[in-house]
Amino acid sequence: MDAISVIRTKRDRGELTPEQIDWVIDAYTRGEVADEQMSALAMAILLNGMNRTEIARWTAAMIASGERMNFDALSRPTTDKHSTGGVGDKITLPLAPLVAACGAAVPQLSGRGLGHTGGTLDKLESIPGWRAHLSNEEMLNVLDTTGAVICAAGDGLAPADKKLYALRDVTGTVEAIPLIASSIMSKKIAEGTGALVLDVKVGSGAFMKTIEDARELASTMVALGTDSGVRTVALLTDMSTPLGLTAGNALEVRESVEVLAGGGPRDVIDLTLALAREMLDAAGLKDADPEKALADGSAMDVWRRMISAQGGDPDATLPVAREQHVVTARSSGVLTRLDAYDVGVAAWRLGAGRARKEDPVQAGAGVELHAKPGDTVTEGQPLMTLHTDTPEKFDYALKALPDAYDIAPAGTSFAPLPVVRERIA
Amino acid sequence: MDAISVIRTKRDRGELTPEQIDWVIDAYTRGEVADEQMSALAMAILLNGMNRTEIARWTAAMIASGERMNFDALSRPTTDKHSTGGVGDKITLPLAPLVAACGAAVPQLSGRGLGHTGGTLDKLESIPGWRAHLSNEEMLNVLDTTGAVICAAGDGLAPADKKLYALRDVTGTVEAIPLIASSIMSKKIAEGTGALVLDVKVGSGAFMKTIEDARELASTMVALGTDSGVRTVALLTDMSTPLGLTAGNALEVRESVEVLAGGGPRDVIDLTLALAREMLDAAGLKDADPEKALADGSAMDVWRRMISAQGGDPDATLPVAREQHVVTARSSGVLTRLDAYDVGVAAWRLGAGRARKEDPVQAGAGVELHAKPGDTVTEGQPLMTLHTDTPEKFDYALKALPDAYDIAPAGTSFAPLPVVRERIA
Repeated sequence: MDAISVIRTKRDRGELTPEQIDWVIDAYTRGEVADEQMSALAMAILLNGMNRTEIARWTAAMIASGERMNFDALSRPTTDKHSTGGVGDKITLPLAPLVAACGAAVPQLSGRGLGHTGGTLDKLESIPGWRAHLSNEEMLNVLDTTGAVICAAGDGLAPADKKLYALRDVTGTVEAIPLIASSIMSKKIAEGTGALVLDVKVGSGAFMKTIEDARELASTMVALGTDSGVRTVALLTDMSTPLGLTAGNALEVRESVEVLAGGGPRDVIDLTLALAREMLDAAGLKDADPEKALADGSAMDVWRRMISAQGGDPDATLPVAREQHVVTARSSGVLTRLDAYDVGVAAWRLGAGRARKEDPVQAGAGVELHAKPGDTVTEGQPLMTLHTDTPEKFDYALKALPDAYDIAPAGTSFAPLPVVRERIA
Repeated sequence: MDAISVIRTKRDRGELTPEQIDWVIDAYTRGEVADEQMSALAMAILLNGMNRTEIARWTAAMIASGERMNFDALSRPTTDKHSTGGVGDKITLPLAPLVAACGAAVPQLSGRGLGHTGGTLDKLESIPGWRAHLSNEEMLNVLDTTGAVICAAGDGLAPADKKLYALRDVTGTVEAIPLIASSIMSKKIAEGTGALVLDVKVGSGAFMKTIEDARELASTMVALGTDSGVRTVALLTDMSTPLGLTAGNALEVRESVEVLAGGGPRDVIDLTLALAREMLDAAGLKDADPEKALADGSAMDVWRRMISAQGGDPDATLPVAREQHVVTARSSGVLTRLDAYDVGVAAWRLGAGRARKEDPVQAGAGVELHAKPGDTVTEGQPLMTLHTDTPEKFDYALKALPDAYDIAPAGTSFAPLPVVRERIA
């Protein structure tokens, strides 16, 4: 077996054999297949595709590259959620404690932001004292005692995926459905969750720009999960506009706490509840009542215990950016579009995100929205507030925003897209 | 400008801008664009193509990565030949001195073999004392005094191509017509020849397996040369069966000397004369008579001077392999096929070629043929003799040969392909 023959097979539109897939993933993890060989193969996969059989084997090989976790000792059923990433997507923060409050165990291994999409760990790290990195024992302990844990995936889980993901990021090979699906599912299956709900974002702020691509990705992942014994469901949800009214680390934590306190923006509440119901259903907890757990404060109790268990102070004041700049509406009427991608790029440029994996993020930086599609606005009213510690970044952030929104004449009839667009099981 | 946006442009079937091409070639040469990024781009080019405008710019950027040579000080017109590589293709050896004997200057920068195709430098190095590596001054001096020089290209010529070629070799991205054409033509244009004849091989032993691919490659290269002021012509020549009766380093030198002495196999003589006429025509020497220069020994005189000028002894005994093994005909009749690729792989496995750039080659190893397509053979007669210093390699070499030939019943009417199939100018 050699790398060139594997690359040629896919380059010439052939089907990779199970032996070729097992070998190339293992040899890449060991360093026998070089980065420049794997990136050529990734490009061939992006352009020529993989069928379901190949994707399943590729996923299995990535799982086999590392350890598998096991939650059998827990008294509660495990259920997890994965989002493909968007702008203002803080849903994991209220969702994990809410589902735990309803009786499930939620082992939420999360990531950091890269590019215009935020990362759950970056958001939680804006809480003073909170630690993302736990040992497997610590993680199981937090999960067992509080019902939910949000932390970084250990290095032992799907190391092949870790290496390949970093490579794809710098070689223009991120946007391949077979590689996205196998990357997500290898980690989730290795993690050992019993049930999984996929939040597949679709729209300008998501990797999947069209509903067709989102459907293809979702059904590929649902099949992978189901075939591996994980009860898997996917919701296709709107990412044409940011979720909620904030994009940025501490800004999003604040909004999440509002939701746990019974307030918060309608779309964040709706999506949190929709995902909670799916997670509880998939875990076999059909009678759970997440709406009640949100209203009666029991979700907030789990949140506070979960944050404390990882060294965070749930009562600490969250960081606030030193400088603000307000963007006003250029005309009066109905806001018909507020672009997720543009807002995400602006938040990223203000310091909320990172250009390279090793860059730090600003806890207080980001964008706060004062209106959402469907709202009536008046010329000159604040549309969004930009936050940063480094005001020299305002100009660069504003360059992302000239075409970020549309306003139609007052009285125009306009219905925003529903948050949940489709369900695939 | 960044590597990912260039990769994405080609990945998404866009046309690369001149600025993108100039930047990516320069940044790759400097090491700012990483190997894994360039290999992803090469795979995208292989699968999505480049148009003529892109190929011309890509070639120009590779030329600009290094120095250009200049032969204006020579009293004779320069003319060069490039073969896309085949099995038993020793034509450069008799051709360069023959064309020099007819009044042109032949600056033949050559390469080494990789895979199943042999390399001119490896062949000449089987002559005791002969040196492939000359300084630019030494090269010009040999060219000026003997009329022909065959040597390794200096490191200063198209360094971007040198780096990219080595990368393509290990990433399954060799077989892209835009990359093959720009690789060959960047070196030949930078070399500064006034005229160029391309020998584009077609058939099992060549990179181009079909006449359509060979035509596309040839016309791309002819356009690149012509647009750069090099008078360029291409011959499409047969590589379904080996050229001549030998494949291997010293074996091919011996056959080449036979041709210069007025003997040798018909197909080698015919192709040598056809290419010589094209080279002399393109150099403006319409009245030259290569057939006479071969017959009267003047080509042989140039050969001897040229070999001596590079430290070689033209009278030295050539190395002979220590062990031989004869393959006999399995039936009687007309030989209708003797596969160039299979014979090339056998010669390579016997030690004539190298698996990695840094491997040595055996001077005496290779395959000697006793019949060619169109010949009548008798069951049990010798069909080929395998030569090697390492007899443990016979078994592995024989594994390349079970389907290497077809014999039709005696009396079958069969006409072999002509050596020169088409001409493109």
